[in-house]
Amino acid sequence: MTATPIALAPNHTQLLEEAITGAGGVLADLDDARALIWDSGPAGFPEQLPENIEWVQLFSAGIEEWFDTPVFDRHPNILFTSAAGAFARTVAEHSLMLLLAGVRALPEHLAARSWRTKELARNIGTLRNATVTVVGAGGIGRELITLLAPLGSRVIAVNRSGAPVDLPGVVETLPAQRLPEVWSRTDHVVIAAPATPGTRHLVGKAELAQLEPHSWVINIARGSLVDTDALVDALRAGTIGGAGLDVTDPEPLPDGHPLWDLPNALVTPHDSNPPQLRTVAFAEHVAENVSRFAQGRELIARVDVAAGY
Amino acid sequence: MTATPIALAPNHTQLLEEAITGAGGVLADLDDARALIWDSGPAGFPEQLPENIEWVQLFSAGIEEWFDTPVFDRHPNILFTSAAGAFARTVAEHSLMLLLAGVRALPEHLAARSWRTKELARNIGTLRNATVTVVGAGGIGRELITLLAPLGSRVIAVNRSGAPVDLPGVVETLPAQRLPEVWSRTDHVVIAAPATPGTRHLVGKAELAQLEPHSWVINIARGSLVDTDALVDALRAGTIGGAGLDVTDPEPLPDGHPLWDLPNALVTPHDSNPPQLRTVAFAEHVAENVSRFAQGRELIARVDVAAGY
Repeated sequence: MTATPIALAPNHTQLLEEAITGAGGVLADLDDARALIWDSGPAGFPEQLPENIEWVQLFSAGIEEWFDTPVFDRHPNILFTSAAGAFARTVAEHSLMLLLAGVRALPEHLAARSWRTKELARNIGTLRNATVTVVGAGGIGRELITLLAPLGSRVIAVNRSGAPVDLPGVVETLPAQRLPEVWSRTDHVVIAAPATPGTRHLVGKAELAQLEPHSWVINIARGSLVDTDALVDALRAGTIGGAGLDVTDPEPLPDGHPLWDLPNALVTPHDSNPPQLRTVAFAEHVAENVSRFAQGRELIARVDVAAGY
Repeated sequence: MTATPIALAPNHTQLLEEAITGAGGVLADLDDARALIWDSGPAGFPEQLPENIEWVQLFSAGIEEWFDTPVFDRHPNILFTSAAGAFARTVAEHSLMLLLAGVRALPEHLAARSWRTKELARNIGTLRNATVTVVGAGGIGRELITLLAPLGSRVIAVNRSGAPVDLPGVVETLPAQRLPEVWSRTDHVVIAAPATPGTRHLVGKAELAQLEPHSWVINIARGSLVDTDALVDALRAGTIGGAGLDVTDPEPLPDGHPLWDLPNALVTPHDSNPPQLRTVAFAEHVAENVSRFAQGRELIARVDVAAGY
């Protein structure tokens, strides 16, 4: 198979070059290439791409800002793909970190200044044989499930349709409308669902009240999905084990907010997908799409210009 | 197939009963059973077991204390099995927790009292595409490797013989004598090797000097494998990212020891296998052995009375 000519601009990071060449592409100038990997924002994007360009890969998961430019209008015959889904793995890893650190009582251990084994060991739990409900089985949720499976967790996946999530470790898939059944029979909950009017305060006072004193609630989606005041009450009362939050409501969390000081609240300031990890993740996404393009297969994360996303 | 009669004593926890019956056994009195699951220490163990007992499962990984009793001598025709290996999973989970929390900078996040995203996000790393060296590919090491694989780590396994560890995620297996090659080309190191004269201070000044400022060292084996003074120097100087230690030298770590106060030292007081998790792990071990016994297959963790372990 002849290597597929691909242009890389405006930056030329080695990682992306390797991703392209390793996936069956060969680096080429824009005028000789069949595709363009654009590893930056809209600023500096070519006004008019040559006719030989069939596909453009953009470097962001949400592409709202690209719709504010004439780029799509000027290139009606070019297929654009975003980086949607590319960053799911780092967010899933982050959520696993928060869940494991909570369940295994790391915060109390870090606060200790003495070898108090008996006292500290008591609070160590395990994800093994624990029921973990993953609300939202999109990219992040699915990645998280693949991390939970070898730990021996029993995953309840919740998605909109209830169509079975066919991944190891999933013992049950529930449609979103059956979520109320979950709270009394899960050990932990990870929120990875989109923010919509329907998911606002999905975790509120009534839901928290049904969880166990050892239960952890992880939110790496959007702050609005959790009722912060109800959560603070539960954390203070110790009716749940704790919360790991990469997103909060309000966000940013103001100085002096009780969540900063509660020992069973692990707050990371919406940095589960930090800038320095994005290029690595993007390179994997590019490799996948270059490989698909070279083989004439359907690309992932295609932009639907008419639909606006 | 007829269910295999198994006695359970001296405690009758539901979890163990379920493990036995779920694995093809049926609960029976000692006089009617072919095997005994003994879920306690040597105190209260029957002076003489009836002749119908072919196999006894003991409830501990290290069985030194049983050798101080006449139990083995009195029952030369009975096969004894220990719980060796049964607790590998909880220790592996704990080591993953320490590694993930370190690599993703959780301690700094927990210390924060303000939404400092830029400053905190900078220090977040990932296990994805990271080279993780697992020293000691026994029960714990192998379990850990199965947890690292879906995270996308590249594992270098180090064992005595160098015989390839055939698990997903393992990119290379090295014999112990080639360990000196590893330090300059690994991101992180997890110590899961037995303590022997040959492994004392396996991680010392020279080894630490070859690691990277982002490297984490996890020790869940024995404190003596790491040179504590050299580690403290490296942690203070920031020449490595940090250390996650479930074991220390000296142990217990005395009050006032610098490791208690270093922000990049995560210390858990040898509680990676806490009492409340042991029964669960033991139940899985019992299920495996009952299933093997019922099928006439070789049991795991057989005690070699002559060899003394």
